[in-house]
Amino acid sequence: MIVAVLVDHSYGKTSIRLAKVVRTEPHHEYMEMAVDIRLGGDFAASYAIGDNSKVIATDSMKNTVYVLAKENSFGSIEELAMLLARHFVKTYGQVDRAAIEINQTLWQRLADRGRPHQHAFVEAGTDRRICTCDLANRKLRLTGGVTNLRFLKTAGSEFRGFVTDRYRTLKDASDRIFATSVEAIWEYESESADFNATFAAARSALIETLARHHSLSAQHTLLATGEAVLKNCPSLRSIRIAMPNLHRIAVDLQPFGLENNNEIFVPIDEPHGLIEGFIERE
Amino acid sequence: MIVAVLVDHSYGKTSIRLAKVVRTEPHHEYMEMAVDIRLGGDFAASYAIGDNSKVIATDSMKNTVYVLAKENSFGSIEELAMLLARHFVKTYGQVDRAAIEINQTLWQRLADRGRPHQHAFVEAGTDRRICTCDLANRKLRLTGGVTNLRFLKTAGSEFRGFVTDRYRTLKDASDRIFATSVEAIWEYESESADFNATFAAARSALIETLARHHSLSAQHTLLATGEAVLKNCPSLRSIRIAMPNLHRIAVDLQPFGLENNNEIFVPIDEPHGLIEGFIERE
Amino acid sequence: MIVAVLVDHSYGKTSIRLAKVVRTEPHHEYMEMAVDIRLGGDFAASYAIGDNSKVIATDSMKNTVYVLAKENSFGSIEELAMLLARHFVKTYGQVDRAAIEINQTLWQRLADRGRPHQHAFVEAGTDRRICTCDLANRKLRLTGGVTNLRFLKTAGSEFRGFVTDRYRTLKDASDRIFATSVEAIWEYESESADFNATFAAARSALIETLARHHSLSAQHTLLATGEAVLKNCPSLRSIRIAMPNLHRIAVDLQPFGLENNNEIFVPIDEPHGLIEGFIERE
Amino acid sequence: MIVAVLVDHSYGKTSIRLAKVVRTEPHHEYMEMAVDIRLGGDFAASYAIGDNSKVIATDSMKNTVYVLAKENSFGSIEELAMLLARHFVKTYGQVDRAAIEINQTLWQRLADRGRPHQHAFVEAGTDRRICTCDLANRKLRLTGGVTNLRFLKTAGSEFRGFVTDRYRTLKDASDRIFATSVEAIWEYESESADFNATFAAARSALIETLARHHSLSAQHTLLATGEAVLKNCPSLRSIRIAMPNLHRIAVDLQPFGLENNNEIFVPIDEPHGLIEGFIERE
Repeated sequence: MIVAVLVDHSYGKTSIRLAKVVRTEPHHEYMEMAVDIRLGGDFAASYAIGDNSKVIATDSMKNTVYVLAKENSFGSIEELAMLLARHFVKTYGQVDRAAIEINQTLWQRLADRGRPHQHAFVEAGTDRRICTCDLANRKLRLTGGVTNLRFLKTAGSEFRGFVTDRYRTLKDASDRIFATSVEAIWEYESESADFNATFAAARSALIETLARHHSLSAQHTLLATGEAVLKNCPSLRSIRIAMPNLHRIAVDLQPFGLENNNEIFVPIDEPHGLIEGFIERE
Repeated sequence: MIVAVLVDHSYGKTSIRLAKVVRTEPHHEYMEMAVDIRLGGDFAASYAIGDNSKVIATDSMKNTVYVLAKENSFGSIEELAMLLARHFVKTYGQVDRAAIEINQTLWQRLADRGRPHQHAFVEAGTDRRICTCDLANRKLRLTGGVTNLRFLKTAGSEFRGFVTDRYRTLKDASDRIFATSVEAIWEYESESADFNATFAAARSALIETLARHHSLSAQHTLLATGEAVLKNCPSLRSIRIAMPNLHRIAVDLQPFGLENNNEIFVPIDEPHGLIEGFIERE
Repeated sequence: MIVAVLVDHSYGKTSIRLAKVVRTEPHHEYMEMAVDIRLGGDFAASYAIGDNSKVIATDSMKNTVYVLAKENSFGSIEELAMLLARHFVKTYGQVDRAAIEINQTLWQRLADRGRPHQHAFVEAGTDRRICTCDLANRKLRLTGGVTNLRFLKTAGSEFRGFVTDRYRTLKDASDRIFATSVEAIWEYESESADFNATFAAARSALIETLARHHSLSAQHTLLATGEAVLKNCPSLRSIRIAMPNLHRIAVDLQPFGLENNNEIFVPIDEPHGLIEGFIERE
Repeated sequence: MIVAVLVDHSYGKTSIRLAKVVRTEPHHEYMEMAVDIRLGGDFAASYAIGDNSKVIATDSMKNTVYVLAKENSFGSIEELAMLLARHFVKTYGQVDRAAIEINQTLWQRLADRGRPHQHAFVEAGTDRRICTCDLANRKLRLTGGVTNLRFLKTAGSEFRGFVTDRYRTLKDASDRIFATSVEAIWEYESESADFNATFAAARSALIETLARHHSLSAQHTLLATGEAVLKNCPSLRSIRIAMPNLHRIAVDLQPFGLENNNEIFVPIDEPHGLIEGFIERE
């Protein structure tokens, strides 16, 4: 008596950490990342009867990352993600989908008496570079992006004229602090884009627009940043942006006989607004 | 010159924390949770030109949670999620979709000289109860679930006969430790299920099956647990399970002249396997 | 030209994770923990001139944990901590101090048709069992404890009559929610106490006192719990308790025309009160 | 029948978050931090009998931070910490000790067409600026510091010649990756040091020394960095450094017929070495 049917399934390895050093002269290159691998395909027998004959062990996936990282040159996480996705689909007939995600820790080369240091780095900031490569039915979808890009400005941000009803207590604000931690995921038009140049250009466009745009709401700023990225990065087809509104709440100082002239705030993490948008090149 | 178009958008409030005490006799009821709200609808003007006239402030969403929690009786997070989703769609013409997620911290009533204590609790375990209510185009989809349910067994788990190739170094294991942290999300057939009874029955079925099932792989166990939940919970249509394989690696003691008879292990968090499956009632 | 002198130094390994299975009949025993090791002694040459000849590699410390865990029976983390501390001081002449800390994840045996299951467990709760063993100059100091023990009560807690001045805005509360996450560290009188029985008795005394004590402040409750532990655990010399006050803030519902009769609260993590006390047996 | 005595106690508020904007022309100044306050003094009655008449509510401590931040100019967290410590000791006769800790999130001003932006910032890096002010018995002890300063180098680091015995499996390394996350806490000679200049100079000395020092062990490098800070910062009396050794483990590629020429590594977080030293000006 069967009551249930396995409709969909996938499996893989999460957070395979990898560092690669390329000891070129005069500068060592250092890349560090965590790789997630997920495979789909003809694995139902392992679920149904514990027949593992088609199962590639997730431990073997981990080994594959090390081996491919050793055997190949790659200058970006996007290239490694494509290498991995194609490897799994090509090598194993039972795999019909390979989805790779990579999260890169960004290390910034130090200066040494005014010139780039050969081999010393500090972690660059709070943000991480991310990418995904999803290869299914011979169709490859490739994204790049940035996450946890923390930005704040003390002027140039308003929020007024929103719905007034029983549930509203927030006042119109003509001059508020705007703070966020952006996650942006962009889709490449082709697999041969210049990924590093695109990352740099997209990140710059994000930050510049956040700084310069006179914000009437987080929504308003989100679209402006997405447009700026697409304008500055011709190799991108679309961009998805998640822009939390990380509130800085003005403290009521009246109980202490003081006026808070937009000076004293409490940063809070929760709750926070979350604004999302998906923007395509026309 | 427009280069970009806003294809999709939504916004809301994340992690609205709420506790409600119902001071009934002889026992106080205490519920504690974090609520996420996301709305879709006619908000494009706020993105395009900063026109906020249709925007319900995320601060107002937060207030709405407090007000609805006060004005309504609800015995489960599923009921509150439905109340909230319906409120937003019904109250605001510009809202055509409301998606609610709730994550409940589980507090376990203490005993007091053999009887239930009136008002004292300890946090029950590592797991949290979760639910979602997604109301779009008058169609309501309701799920319940559990996350971070941490289970381990020291016997009854094998992993053998998987693919042998260049990338394999893992040996067949006929007796390994099986450890996981289950996330299971089940979809209700109807909005009038007994949500608390279902949660209890599903959680029990999960744990019992994990304990009793002789596991030939994590995949094998995943399907067995999903079947058990559907079998024990007639009000459920389907279940989605994510079952990480949280490895306990046997230490090689040979360098120290010792044999490791399946005794000494290193628990690691990363990397870990991640097995997923979606199971429907037939 | 020396400008600086190394006044104090120590080194070691942090978070050596270990699991041990004892496959006794009818029940497997499973212990899981993270061990921190810190050594003091004659290591100044490694700091001053990079002479490592007396340095025990922290990697060797890790191996030592595995080897000693294999070669010895121990029924509690306190026993393992003493084994390790004595090993380092006895084995290496250059070590004059060994400080061990252990943090144990607590796994609770499941029931199997009303009887204890042989080999299946769930993680027991949010709290962890902890201990330290500090062996210096032949003097051994041994502590046990519990951390992250999360307790909440919806009645039996007041806070009134505190200082009124310019900085006070909090009202007297005659009936507030009391929530905490206790860390208690107790010092044993001797190295031959029954550590597991003491842990169970101390944890019970903590929870029972938190539940029964009519609290006039967190300070008031802290001393009561400390007294209860010392009263119930004759093998203890002293106890140090850190008791955060994890606020549940009553929501002001007046803007919505509602009265909050001590029903609707916002749990917050930050800021929180932190009350500490050190209590000795007289 | 008293069995226990309260030997020591303190209480306070943890993680009072604060942001202050100073809207000067042409540049807004923005400071953001979390403040911890702990008071000692004549509070035993609150523990013993729930007499709160001398208790300053931790909520009032929070308000005090807001008020003092509003009423005072301060250009560094050290100045605010001293203001707070002195306030509590001076204002309340029952307080004989005030210990303040501040953890500052560092925001870096953006450039705007080659010039400093008036009001836009990104979070500067992973590290935070920290300080403590401990005022007890009219004696003030003031420290500054930095935490989570993440540094890595791919050359210039050895670890050889350490103890060889049964527990050693690690080989001598003449060229390893050195990665760390430094916490350094320095003590000021006087309360009138230039705190911001000292922070900048100490942080630079740390990073430069980490980069340039040929490391024979983490211990060796720790002392060199401590000496460099004291040499470059005359206003400091001493420095305490905690330098974890965040291992990058070379992957064994021999099972795959490959040689790992110091190229492919696994970064791990646990376990990690932890090297500590306290260095004083002679």
